[in-house]
Amino acid sequence: MGFEDKIRRVVPYVPGEQPKADNIVKLNTNENPYPPSPSVRETLKRFDADSLRLYPDPAASVLVHAIAEYYGLRDEEVFVGVGSDDVLAMCMMTFFNSEMPVLFPDITYSFYDVWAELFRIPYEQIPLDDAFHIVPGDYLKPNGGIIFPNPNAPTGSLLPLDTVRSIAAGSPDSVVIVDEAYVDFGGESALPLIREFPNVVVVQTFSKSRSAAGLRIGYAMADASLIRYLNDVKYSFNSYTMNRLTIEAGAACIRDEAYFRSCCEKIMATRERTTAALRDMGFRVEDSAANFVFASHPGVMGRYIFEYLKTRNIYVRWWDKPRISSYLRITIGTDRQMDILLDALRDYLGAVPS
Amino acid sequence: MGFEDKIRRVVPYVPGEQPKADNIVKLNTNENPYPPSPSVRETLKRFDADSLRLYPDPAASVLVHAIAEYYGLRDEEVFVGVGSDDVLAMCMMTFFNSEMPVLFPDITYSFYDVWAELFRIPYEQIPLDDAFHIVPGDYLKPNGGIIFPNPNAPTGSLLPLDTVRSIAAGSPDSVVIVDEAYVDFGGESALPLIREFPNVVVVQTFSKSRSAAGLRIGYAMADASLIRYLNDVKYSFNSYTMNRLTIEAGAACIRDEAYFRSCCEKIMATRERTTAALRDMGFRVEDSAANFVFASHPGVMGRYIFEYLKTRNIYVRWWDKPRISSYLRITIGTDRQMDILLDALRDYLGAVPS
Repeated sequence: MGFEDKIRRVVPYVPGEQPKADNIVKLNTNENPYPPSPSVRETLKRFDADSLRLYPDPAASVLVHAIAEYYGLRDEEVFVGVGSDDVLAMCMMTFFNSEMPVLFPDITYSFYDVWAELFRIPYEQIPLDDAFHIVPGDYLKPNGGIIFPNPNAPTGSLLPLDTVRSIAAGSPDSVVIVDEAYVDFGGESALPLIREFPNVVVVQTFSKSRSAAGLRIGYAMADASLIRYLNDVKYSFNSYTMNRLTIEAGAACIRDEAYFRSCCEKIMATRERTTAALRDMGFRVEDSAANFVFASHPGVMGRYIFEYLKTRNIYVRWWDKPRISSYLRITIGTDRQMDILLDALRDYLGAVPS
Repeated sequence: MGFEDKIRRVVPYVPGEQPKADNIVKLNTNENPYPPSPSVRETLKRFDADSLRLYPDPAASVLVHAIAEYYGLRDEEVFVGVGSDDVLAMCMMTFFNSEMPVLFPDITYSFYDVWAELFRIPYEQIPLDDAFHIVPGDYLKPNGGIIFPNPNAPTGSLLPLDTVRSIAAGSPDSVVIVDEAYVDFGGESALPLIREFPNVVVVQTFSKSRSAAGLRIGYAMADASLIRYLNDVKYSFNSYTMNRLTIEAGAACIRDEAYFRSCCEKIMATRERTTAALRDMGFRVEDSAANFVFASHPGVMGRYIFEYLKTRNIYVRWWDKPRISSYLRITIGTDRQMDILLDALRDYLGAVPS
């Protein structure tokens, strides 16, 4: 047995392209088209670079406290990580530690099964219905845990809080993780449920609604005892994951409520306008509560539109996967970016430019 | 079986204290007393905060390239992570994936056994000899992998390159990881061995010699095929771990060779002076090739000295562990910091102040 046989082989997650060219319309990774709060820039300007010689606070207390304060929680109820990917991976590693299958939708964030494979967690993918909605009753079976995004990705479809509550109530013997990466664009957070259920974890991120994908901040909110288990695993893995710059910039970011609200509102307005325009062109567009829309055209295969848009320097997301291969996931950018997209689609579909 | 039974319980690694008070002499976590290269400050000043709305380059190409260029490697031979803890954890998860025990010293970096437990990797701790040295012959047995720091922590003792080569040569069927967190303070890197052995991985960090513990950058250098496996696992875990600020600041940091050399030289000179002064006071001090010394006093228990120093606002590291409980690990700070320490020790030991 050579050293190669002792190496773990995994099929890696393939993130959306990050083309390095300027001058592209980048609507493929659900980034926010607006820059982060000006307070982030100010914080970085004031930052004492000499302090980088020291390790950061392993508890990232300044950031944890800013998040707790924002949501009216105690610091002990908040866990932070390097993007919600880090937080979700730690959650799965910590909370899904049984022999029973973890449940998540078949069409959902494509990292869940990658993590389950990596951590050797048994899992079962529960099909969405034909309208691409989660069927809450399907989750009422013995399980090792439940995880789903709300709004779901890549569909953008939202479960109302009562439905999320019913899923949590149906699995008192497992941890239920609600991945709310996109909740600020019109969804209702399950955060109140952490008071009702000791087994509910709500995960959010700075990468979408707070315009800070480049900072890498995600967070989990739950009963203090769950947060403690999460921290124990995190400290066993890497004590110092949040660097000094991120801790300071992140705290400044979440304190700027007015700016955050105004960005979210602009994106929601642009989303509604874009949805209407796409439907006018004959696209089927799911109702979205996220900063993206999920759209297919009855006349043209998703792949063709995807490839055509690339030739126009417009990047959207398309998956060569069962059930969704006719769809495109289109991030909501600025109004101007969406106009460029819509014009390109009109050209492609041969419709008369408006 | 309730949800609590499905939760993974770990005994977390306890990092050295990060006291938040000013006005302390912090010699407990092997930070560099000198600030990072001025080019880091300049890079942060020039940094475009608006770009934080976008995800970072998942491959951190700018930083990978700067590191590769520095060492005369190809980019494909370099892997970067969030501190060497992240890199070492990924290495263990990737390369130590067999049923055979992984070997590491009994007295060593205290994270190795924590990771082995977390990833359920069988392991065997090989005792150092009575002089606290690694005995290379002890590693000549069937194993699932080998990992050791060189210089070793917390002893600071160095293996010559030929000895490291003999350990690598003795285990062609396992991956051998040389953790060189402290190598820049007088050690000889095993980097040339990655050309001789396809199974050797060399890990280094920006946290000690490059004065950037607060940035969180570690890196692995190895044959391109090993780096590819490592990246596959990393991308399965979290695609975007290095944030935009870190990538830019890190690249600037490693390019400033003159500043780096001068800091390392100052620390080595201070270490030699401190070692001599401690020996004059009756301490037994191991020869150190790191930015810390490992010292015990025949007359006083380590714990007492440790507690006394805290009352003087001086923090060093002490472990309540077999074999080393009489020792203190003392980070090398500035000359002035070491003078404060030495004065306090003289007071404590009742010696005449020099």
